[in-house]
Amino acid sequence: MKKSLRRILLYRGSLIRLQTMGVKRVYSYTLGKETGITAEQVRKDFSEYKIKGYQRGGYQVDELITELEKIFYQNGHQNIILVGRGNIGSSLANYRGFIQRQINIVATFDIDPSKQRPRSEVPVYNVDRMEEIINRFSVRTAIIAVPDIAAQLVCDQLVKCGIKGIINFAPVILKVPDDTVLNNLNLSDEIESVIYCVSNGLLPSIGHNSQIQR
Amino acid sequence: MKKSLRRILLYRGSLIRLQTMGVKRVYSYTLGKETGITAEQVRKDFSEYKIKGYQRGGYQVDELITELEKIFYQNGHQNIILVGRGNIGSSLANYRGFIQRQINIVATFDIDPSKQRPRSEVPVYNVDRMEEIINRFSVRTAIIAVPDIAAQLVCDQLVKCGIKGIINFAPVILKVPDDTVLNNLNLSDEIESVIYCVSNGLLPSIGHNSQIQR
Repeated sequence: MKKSLRRILLYRGSLIRLQTMGVKRVYSYTLGKETGITAEQVRKDFSEYKIKGYQRGGYQVDELITELEKIFYQNGHQNIILVGRGNIGSSLANYRGFIQRQINIVATFDIDPSKQRPRSEVPVYNVDRMEEIINRFSVRTAIIAVPDIAAQLVCDQLVKCGIKGIINFAPVILKVPDDTVLNNLNLSDEIESVIYCVSNGLLPSIGHNSQIQR
Repeated sequence: MKKSLRRILLYRGSLIRLQTMGVKRVYSYTLGKETGITAEQVRKDFSEYKIKGYQRGGYQVDELITELEKIFYQNGHQNIILVGRGNIGSSLANYRGFIQRQINIVATFDIDPSKQRPRSEVPVYNVDRMEEIINRFSVRTAIIAVPDIAAQLVCDQLVKCGIKGIINFAPVILKVPDDTVLNNLNLSDEIESVIYCVSNGLLPSIGHNSQIQR
């Protein structure tokens, strides 16, 4: 994704934290310090997305959060589905952090009848209802959390049902059409990259946080 | 992390898949096609890590996997710990994909006595035993999967116990010393970035897979 967008997400995370701490007004250097990004970069990013501060400097925290969220939520569609109710899938389905961020998992699917619960809070349907549910909720984004061996098949099915964005937790490389956005989250890779950096004394950094460049 | 290393992980994933399919020999263009990377780049990466192929072209799949794994496992230390046995933490503790990749979660910790199981297969200890266990297993890498409000405290404790690499699943921006590697995996951010790209018709791509640049 665009690096400026990733930073926008960082700013928002930081602002929400400041907001819960009762902070009302921030300056670009405060936000910079919190996120490990220079104040110049913060101002540059805000101007890219046409966010204006006070004339005498600084931004109102509540307003700034609203502005940043507009960038992400302009279409108002945050309905997503999830396929695969194993360990990872179920923990994602129950993850409360998504609710806070207005990500709404409207339905989940599993091939295993013993896992299907069409009437629970986050329903678990048989995969044969995928197309119907995707259409009903106008879903365009899906999470794949099935075993590696089933991932490509599920991916193809999702694409056929009109899904345009996929977050893939299965540890395989998926093939998608050119008009589909794919975000692979291979958790083993993410952990190994840290182990590798630690073992080799590497500190690839963004800002002062020594964060791994992603 | 270094982009070439991320590609090395991609190659390995692809090779393991080819291996299970019974493929014995690959060419750089095969690997390139599988991973969405050009054959030239594949060869360049291999030469950076001093990996040689057959004189007449191509690589032996088994040998190549071993070579690529050496890059990651040269120190042989893959023991890690995990703090926080909520939804995400427990699913990671039970994730079988790590075993395949020789990532060994030797211990997990939780502040809640009702979750503590010091004798189970993946033991759950009280947090007060963190230092002892870290030393016993020479652990240098840890996963944080606690609620956001506790994450910085846990992070500080881990650093004090000698942890040099942290994978953070808590949706907060952590502060770590300059010599510590931090990989933030904010799952909401990862999903939102896909939703954003889909809503706005953006296709930030690596190779032909339209993968989000990470």
